[in-house]
Amino acid sequence: MIVQMNHNASPADVAMVRKKAEEMSMSLVDFSDEITLRLVLPGKHDPYLAREFAELRGVNDVVATAHGHCLTHRAANPAGTIIDVRGNIFGGDLPVVIAGPCAVESYDQMMQTAVALSELGISILRGGAFKPRTSPYDFQGLGEEALRILERVRAETGMAFITEATGVGCFDAVESAADIVQIGARNMQNVELLKRAGRSHRPILLKRHFSATIDEFLHAAEYVMAEGNRNVILCERGIRSFVDHARFTLDVALIPALQARTHLPILVDPSHAAGDRRLVIPLARAALAADADGLIVEAHPCPNESACDARQALNFDDLEVLMREIEYPPFMTTAALAAEVPA
Amino acid sequence: MIVQMNHNASPADVAMVRKKAEEMSMSLVDFSDEITLRLVLPGKHDPYLAREFAELRGVNDVVATAHGHCLTHRAANPAGTIIDVRGNIFGGDLPVVIAGPCAVESYDQMMQTAVALSELGISILRGGAFKPRTSPYDFQGLGEEALRILERVRAETGMAFITEATGVGCFDAVESAADIVQIGARNMQNVELLKRAGRSHRPILLKRHFSATIDEFLHAAEYVMAEGNRNVILCERGIRSFVDHARFTLDVALIPALQARTHLPILVDPSHAAGDRRLVIPLARAALAADADGLIVEAHPCPNESACDARQALNFDDLEVLMREIEYPPFMTTAALAAEVPA
Amino acid sequence: MIVQMNHNASPADVAMVRKKAEEMSMSLVDFSDEITLRLVLPGKHDPYLAREFAELRGVNDVVATAHGHCLTHRAANPAGTIIDVRGNIFGGDLPVVIAGPCAVESYDQMMQTAVALSELGISILRGGAFKPRTSPYDFQGLGEEALRILERVRAETGMAFITEATGVGCFDAVESAADIVQIGARNMQNVELLKRAGRSHRPILLKRHFSATIDEFLHAAEYVMAEGNRNVILCERGIRSFVDHARFTLDVALIPALQARTHLPILVDPSHAAGDRRLVIPLARAALAADADGLIVEAHPCPNESACDARQALNFDDLEVLMREIEYPPFMTTAALAAEVPA
Amino acid sequence: MIVQMNHNASPADVAMVRKKAEEMSMSLVDFSDEITLRLVLPGKHDPYLAREFAELRGVNDVVATAHGHCLTHRAANPAGTIIDVRGNIFGGDLPVVIAGPCAVESYDQMMQTAVALSELGISILRGGAFKPRTSPYDFQGLGEEALRILERVRAETGMAFITEATGVGCFDAVESAADIVQIGARNMQNVELLKRAGRSHRPILLKRHFSATIDEFLHAAEYVMAEGNRNVILCERGIRSFVDHARFTLDVALIPALQARTHLPILVDPSHAAGDRRLVIPLARAALAADADGLIVEAHPCPNESACDARQALNFDDLEVLMREIEYPPFMTTAALAAEVPA
Repeated sequence: MIVQMNHNASPADVAMVRKKAEEMSMSLVDFSDEITLRLVLPGKHDPYLAREFAELRGVNDVVATAHGHCLTHRAANPAGTIIDVRGNIFGGDLPVVIAGPCAVESYDQMMQTAVALSELGISILRGGAFKPRTSPYDFQGLGEEALRILERVRAETGMAFITEATGVGCFDAVESAADIVQIGARNMQNVELLKRAGRSHRPILLKRHFSATIDEFLHAAEYVMAEGNRNVILCERGIRSFVDHARFTLDVALIPALQARTHLPILVDPSHAAGDRRLVIPLARAALAADADGLIVEAHPCPNESACDARQALNFDDLEVLMREIEYPPFMTTAALAAEVPA
Repeated sequence: MIVQMNHNASPADVAMVRKKAEEMSMSLVDFSDEITLRLVLPGKHDPYLAREFAELRGVNDVVATAHGHCLTHRAANPAGTIIDVRGNIFGGDLPVVIAGPCAVESYDQMMQTAVALSELGISILRGGAFKPRTSPYDFQGLGEEALRILERVRAETGMAFITEATGVGCFDAVESAADIVQIGARNMQNVELLKRAGRSHRPILLKRHFSATIDEFLHAAEYVMAEGNRNVILCERGIRSFVDHARFTLDVALIPALQARTHLPILVDPSHAAGDRRLVIPLARAALAADADGLIVEAHPCPNESACDARQALNFDDLEVLMREIEYPPFMTTAALAAEVPA
Repeated sequence: MIVQMNHNASPADVAMVRKKAEEMSMSLVDFSDEITLRLVLPGKHDPYLAREFAELRGVNDVVATAHGHCLTHRAANPAGTIIDVRGNIFGGDLPVVIAGPCAVESYDQMMQTAVALSELGISILRGGAFKPRTSPYDFQGLGEEALRILERVRAETGMAFITEATGVGCFDAVESAADIVQIGARNMQNVELLKRAGRSHRPILLKRHFSATIDEFLHAAEYVMAEGNRNVILCERGIRSFVDHARFTLDVALIPALQARTHLPILVDPSHAAGDRRLVIPLARAALAADADGLIVEAHPCPNESACDARQALNFDDLEVLMREIEYPPFMTTAALAAEVPA
Repeated sequence: MIVQMNHNASPADVAMVRKKAEEMSMSLVDFSDEITLRLVLPGKHDPYLAREFAELRGVNDVVATAHGHCLTHRAANPAGTIIDVRGNIFGGDLPVVIAGPCAVESYDQMMQTAVALSELGISILRGGAFKPRTSPYDFQGLGEEALRILERVRAETGMAFITEATGVGCFDAVESAADIVQIGARNMQNVELLKRAGRSHRPILLKRHFSATIDEFLHAAEYVMAEGNRNVILCERGIRSFVDHARFTLDVALIPALQARTHLPILVDPSHAAGDRRLVIPLARAALAADADGLIVEAHPCPNESACDARQALNFDDLEVLMREIEYPPFMTTAALAAEVPA
């Protein structure tokens, strides 16, 4: 449940709430913002207990939260969570675009990509170091070497980067290198990994499993948050259905449905949803039109030579089309933005 | 297969193609436009026969078409089919919006709706006369009486209207009254009804069954076209999946996938996809951002008193929001926006 | 709702119930069996009205039935509906097997099939006369000619037969010829056809649409029963899912789920579920192990020359294996059974 | 690919094959049985290389195996893999039944269960020690304490036990205690866990994710086998579909489809598929009728007091019914039944 204090609640009032929580052996997470004091008590909702809290001095309201959906609940942070990654604002007014290849293959490939993205106003690079492939005989990524490449590219271009931690075994390495740690769709219910991510100081991009309900998705985010990490970015990447004209079915309705239920930013990955580069741009436009907070897109200097997912990566010309069609890159310099606003 | 003639092909050349088709007992449909002479031979593709046609004088190319996907094939009308319904252009540059209640309940309800829509710039009304309800004990629509109401509203307001023919039994009545005849999702593979629609002089709005593949959907449209009716408008309304935050899952990727394969206009019904009015507007925006040719939306003067589908109908204030939001899609350039505003 | 009378209720008591139903303009269907007087009032359940009926003299109980699920409700006929088709008992102790080709192609093909089936103890033949094909350019069946072939084979062999009515247009012809009229999966929500079937004197085999919920399936059966036809046989034939090792996914759990909710017999079509003859026999065994009332199986003298669905039809050797594995054909004469038991 | 040697191949011939594999830096796994020398070279199939192996002396045949499906391939062990767990034979002629509660709650609960199962002839106990719950606030299992309880019950009753390793973190503990280590459906693509399981000396029961294709499922098993563990038992537990009369949809066709493609034993979990105890027994019967190698069933002394999944656990009376019903499957011939009963 979520305890909202009155605007004039005194520190003593807040201390009383904390004391009561302690007496009940409940953990308590402070979600106050500049306007409202807000204390979240994760766990099962208990109407009897809720009443007791409601009767404490200085308490304005106690919001019941569905089981397992507390820290992620919209009411914990009604204004929406904002996550700043080297100046890129997730959950702000403008969408963020992340782009790059499925897998890091070489320094040249990544440097070439970083330069191209910069020119398009994109300042977060994606690239797999550890790849969770379906078959044990597929290319599994360059691992630590890829992390070094990404770090070098960041040092030389200023681009932030995101890469996936495929398990607790490689989490430390990924965490110490990357600006954002990705948890892949197939690991969305790898509880051990979710808990480790919850103890990280890095923002986590959590992809929805292609067969997860909205509840299961939010529960996975709750696992991360319950360990203390508040910086979770959700990402929809298509569901598995009977449809055969796309690799997965982008679930656009998830965007407004999530916005109603959680304060976390929501990205969309149109590339994995489509599995076919001809569908990527329309899906990207649809995602932003449905109010997604940004995109994560596969792009490669030469998609047909890509080590994986060749069919869905955009080349840089296509990526330029995409950027033009979605129009206002949030990553534009203040000067560029100023130039756009009519005097 | 599709026989494309040279630009300088003579009438005698065309006659030769027709003669050959006749000899082979193949029907032949003329899809020529102002630029290109184009003759479609529906049915199975036969590479041997294709070669014979290709060798005739004046033939430029013979396009192989997948089985059962000939008259609907993009190559039959590369520029895209345009259908004009009382001045509303389906398949043109601007999207068309159709709105109205699930079911016609009374003259007052429809008149009130028509007036509200007119003020928002909508000029096609929807309203069910015959309702294909899941249960035999649900309200089945006012039937012929509803058609009379719709005709009266059209006469008084100039609004065109679309209504569903739920079977061959009521087709004549619907056809003689409505401007567009709808075939509902649950009847998408009712072959008898598709054939009857193919012999109609009215445009047909064909809804995709919620479990139909793109092939099955196009085959259903092909059934209609094979009987002679070229004016088919396709409509995506969500697929059935495991998802529980929306009644159906809007398959946005179907829009570009269809555009690549067929010349027919594509509408989207965000209301049935959502099953929840809070999701309708984001889905409508997403559909247009993915380049749909228009929307068909449920709207009701007082949704909570609606005879059916109460949860998904917009009231007129919501509809106004929708219209405002889709008029200024976020991806439009400032120039485009400026050009759109009348001086 | 379902009004159950006391065992000693008098004719006057029953008349009172009828009179009350009449006053309320409710239709009333008599589902009494030798043991219990039972009157079903189809339509929405009304607790207030239920109480009024419950208070009438001679009334033992009033069972609330979910909306649209009255005549099909288990409580309307707790012992289960039994349908006798020329001595084949659907819903009895032993399963019924129906077999034959997808489509009737010739007299020879059907005669050959009928002879082979007879030798295996099967006495109901299936064969499509009117075929509801996905594409307009596929073979649509021999139509009336096929009905004449089936009648001739019946006259010569004594085999009953089932064939599909693909619409109201061919219903009369099918009904006058066939012993059982089939409604195909794709027409499960063709309300016009369901209503026509409800006015038929023939038993109806109603296939579940591959994306229908159990409620939708029972509502479709209710449409048939609401028009007066009590002889409805339900048939599960697989659902559409993401699975790619079979054409559809046989929903075995539907069998016990239906048995709990309805009194109608339940068949299974393992052939369309599998779409692959190698899976047909295991699915057939599973269906009967889950207590299905019988099977409808595709079999063809020479499957690879079959006009349609060639991949899933069994040849007669395979069919013999199937019959041996499921062991006790219900349609066998006592003599035949005796002959099978080793002395 | 799989290299099959001639029956009279000499040790020198085999050495040559091994040498060639070494030269190509390919790993090679010996799958020979008493009859045939069979060497599996995991990884991508290369027709050119296959020819080279085929030309070596003593080589009978080289079987191409689809990418990522080598060690699991039926041809690697055509007779089928047999796994013996304390005398319980997985993959043998008779099905194995595993039963027990969702979670270990106490010594008494487990002891009571073990005694009841023993009386029914069941000798493998299941019980969750570490529970991978959807929500972080749900009961997560007794952990190590549960392992101690299971060990004590094993010591006192002789029952083997299986329990789940929910991550690499608890794998060592589970492995050292349990007779079989389970990998749950949600971890089916947790590659780190699969690899750890591949280095275990314990048999692994690998559950199919509820949205995994047959290829993905076999690839997961291949991950385990590629690390050296050959004792993998597959387990189908239902797929996620639109169906709402059961929690998941048991995919019976997977059983014969897997049998055609892999030599690994296949169990079925009817309890998680059903999510409703009334459906468990029919699903269990269906699974065995489709030739599953056994069942894993939830059973609890008092299901309604169960710490989790209360709705689907059988009580011991129900379990007795299940055991009785599967002992005499209806499709068994009288002769077979007679043969089964010890004189």
